[in-house]
Amino acid sequence: MARRFFQLIIMCYLIGWVFVTKKGYQVVDDTIESSVVTKVKGIARVNTTFSDLWGPEEYVIPDHGGKFLFVVTNFIETPNQTLTTCPESPSVPFSTCTHDDNCTEGEAVRAGNGIKTGTCRKTDGNETNTCEIYGWCPTEKSSRPEAATMLREAENFTVYIRNFIKFSQFNLSKTNILKEGYPSYIKTCLHDEIHHPYCPVFRLGDIVSKAGYRFEEVAAKGGSIGIVIKWSCDFDMDTSDCHPQYSFMAMGSSTPVTAGYNFRFARYSSDAAGRTHRNLYKVYGFQLNVMVFGTASQFSIIHTIINVASVLTLMAVG
Amino acid sequence: MARRFFQLIIMCYLIGWVFVTKKGYQVVDDTIESSVVTKVKGIARVNTTFSDLWGPEEYVIPDHGGKFLFVVTNFIETPNQTLTTCPESPSVPFSTCTHDDNCTEGEAVRAGNGIKTGTCRKTDGNETNTCEIYGWCPTEKSSRPEAATMLREAENFTVYIRNFIKFSQFNLSKTNILKEGYPSYIKTCLHDEIHHPYCPVFRLGDIVSKAGYRFEEVAAKGGSIGIVIKWSCDFDMDTSDCHPQYSFMAMGSSTPVTAGYNFRFARYSSDAAGRTHRNLYKVYGFQLNVMVFGTASQFSIIHTIINVASVLTLMAVG
Amino acid sequence: MARRFFQLIIMCYLIGWVFVTKKGYQVVDDTIESSVVTKVKGIARVNTTFSDLWGPEEYVIPDHGGKFLFVVTNFIETPNQTLTTCPESPSVPFSTCTHDDNCTEGEAVRAGNGIKTGTCRKTDGNETNTCEIYGWCPTEKSSRPEAATMLREAENFTVYIRNFIKFSQFNLSKTNILKEGYPSYIKTCLHDEIHHPYCPVFRLGDIVSKAGYRFEEVAAKGGSIGIVIKWSCDFDMDTSDCHPQYSFMAMGSSTPVTAGYNFRFARYSSDAAGRTHRNLYKVYGFQLNVMVFGTASQFSIIHTIINVASVLTLMAVG
Repeated sequence: MARRFFQLIIMCYLIGWVFVTKKGYQVVDDTIESSVVTKVKGIARVNTTFSDLWGPEEYVIPDHGGKFLFVVTNFIETPNQTLTTCPESPSVPFSTCTHDDNCTEGEAVRAGNGIKTGTCRKTDGNETNTCEIYGWCPTEKSSRPEAATMLREAENFTVYIRNFIKFSQFNLSKTNILKEGYPSYIKTCLHDEIHHPYCPVFRLGDIVSKAGYRFEEVAAKGGSIGIVIKWSCDFDMDTSDCHPQYSFMAMGSSTPVTAGYNFRFARYSSDAAGRTHRNLYKVYGFQLNVMVFGTASQFSIIHTIINVASVLTLMAVG
Repeated sequence: MARRFFQLIIMCYLIGWVFVTKKGYQVVDDTIESSVVTKVKGIARVNTTFSDLWGPEEYVIPDHGGKFLFVVTNFIETPNQTLTTCPESPSVPFSTCTHDDNCTEGEAVRAGNGIKTGTCRKTDGNETNTCEIYGWCPTEKSSRPEAATMLREAENFTVYIRNFIKFSQFNLSKTNILKEGYPSYIKTCLHDEIHHPYCPVFRLGDIVSKAGYRFEEVAAKGGSIGIVIKWSCDFDMDTSDCHPQYSFMAMGSSTPVTAGYNFRFARYSSDAAGRTHRNLYKVYGFQLNVMVFGTASQFSIIHTIINVASVLTLMAVG
Repeated sequence: MARRFFQLIIMCYLIGWVFVTKKGYQVVDDTIESSVVTKVKGIARVNTTFSDLWGPEEYVIPDHGGKFLFVVTNFIETPNQTLTTCPESPSVPFSTCTHDDNCTEGEAVRAGNGIKTGTCRKTDGNETNTCEIYGWCPTEKSSRPEAATMLREAENFTVYIRNFIKFSQFNLSKTNILKEGYPSYIKTCLHDEIHHPYCPVFRLGDIVSKAGYRFEEVAAKGGSIGIVIKWSCDFDMDTSDCHPQYSFMAMGSSTPVTAGYNFRFARYSSDAAGRTHRNLYKVYGFQLNVMVFGTASQFSIIHTIINVASVLTLMAVG
């Protein structure tokens, strides 16, 4: 009786697990070699001392279209900074003072904007006293991201994603772009699971909402999005069945501390006297990270024999 | 009789699969920690308003020598752009017009270079009418990559690749650079499988042709190349047998739509009046992506006992 | 007797390996989706023609706070280069000459700074003769890193690391940042395994010494550091037990040839006559590479049944 019970379990195991779930008759290659090219298009009106219109050359960082890219959707500009003295920003911890004795000369506060000169001074807004510093002045006005300059057109920016993959073991390669009569199609199409599943151009607003973010909120504070391309290629089927599956993931939680994505960069220039000036930008936006996963499988006589042998052995026990 | 047949299968399985193919007597570490440093050298004569000679500081992007790098081999320069109005480039879809009514004021076409002003205007070449835009003007002349400015010396550029790996489980590390009397060797050697297998400096032309590309073709349009470094270290052998194996993969297909690699970047400057100018570069070239794979294995008494036990069990069945 | 021996081995195998070591009753997810944000803070006094104070905008490359970042700790500045002729640097191999015949006009030496003009010339230091080149002049003075300009304050720079992970299979996500009352804590805390294990801000000096490097040595020549964040989440335990484990790895050996990390970049400007000047920087520093590994496991009735069945089968053999 117990013997029959074992046999039943073994039969289920064999058929269900080894051959259906695990596809024991196939050899699997899960080291996928992948190359990703991205390109963002769109124009945004902004209001900076630098320019009043931003194209991809200005709002995509870095510029070399790889699998990590950042699209600026909001920013705080601090124009025309020079190296001189000014009161520290009150948002820097421990920067406020009541007397010169609170400001140790030569000290650099962590997260501060410069080196203390030893003087306690009124801030430019006249609201409070902070230690004077030597550094890039004036310091950044610590406005909340909500008050910054938004790129309202960003929702309609388009992101072109080209992915080329290779399974060396099977010497097979695929791309997410169809081949027939394509050049003009790519310039005008927009990805849509139902009508345009093979169009490699995505609207930024769609990517953001599919990841589960509300656009206006995250465009203000910034956020990280994972764009997952999944390939599961069963080469026993027709290879044309091996298609990319796109999915979008919000890579951040909703608590204020862990949300957001911003960084600062500067553009430098020299005046006639040879003095260096810089424009500082604190930029908020979407960090897009294209991740490619995939497995390929194919019938293998060796794997079939080994699994059948194991199965028969276990049967014999029964 | 059937019993003998099973025994035979099991014997083959045991000896062939468990101990020879799978090396069942060893423990395997396939989480490899890796660090890659790259450096490109070479000088190219070019013809730009910016300079007439490019070194690595100009043609390698980004500059911080990591495992992703891009070498410019061809480019289109659009010098001295300013923010003003000009006719849109005819290569932008739907940019041509016959009448002002075709041009909606304030509209920004997808993939366009600026915002329409509402006027229909002759292009500078006088060939056709396109909508006038406000943007960085003049717009890029959409020449074919074949007509652009090539860096003919690129084939002889050298790429130095340093790879350091670590298998934490075995507390062992290796590098692709030999240690003896090396500094001067590195400055003059060129990798060659037969004569200089330990030289970490590769000629760009060799990398490209080993990947299966024709240099002149791909230098014009750009392309992606995977440089795979494979380590398979069997620490039961002498560790000095654990050498890097280099291979080069073309990561792109040959169809026009999916081939090529280009992106745009700009260099900014201000004139005496404080107005911003930019030089726009559309660059074509080789994207090199160094990928490191590896496994380390070592004799393990536990793994041997477990596999011998399994084997004996199966034998007993027979 | 032999039968008893097999039974013993099988029992040990079953209990020890399948259920304790391998946790055969659980399903495991080892594809971790991860997002990393980094931000460096601190001010350093330097001495360059460009500025006498560097903040993160100047010493962190690239600026977009991702999982690869480079912190400059030492550099050699070559200010005000222009495209003209000058003697080649004597440190370039085969650059010395005794006569014009040694210098082939139009030739570009590998690793050289420009194209030979065909003249043999005294170097500026008057010590030796080298071939004259056309290129960015004057060439970089090849000082040893020890003689360069150090950022002495770098040891106290702080590195903020935010890591968000997701296990899609279990639909669970975690971050390395605690949630309660945090904003002010983050601005002032410093990571410490005992007192502040949940603070995501690390002192650069601590990272370097935990990786096993001596700070002053490596700050001069540069080096690569792997920051490993390991998550091992057993969701059968309370999920709050799923914490990040930080470890730091020196990714480089101590031999002079394979040690060090440096690269060059240039900042461009134009003078009134429209001529391009550049400041060349050869920077040494720490390349930080945040690597995230992780597995999640959870009780699975299917896995338990399958493993119990296999075990019972093997027992039956005994």
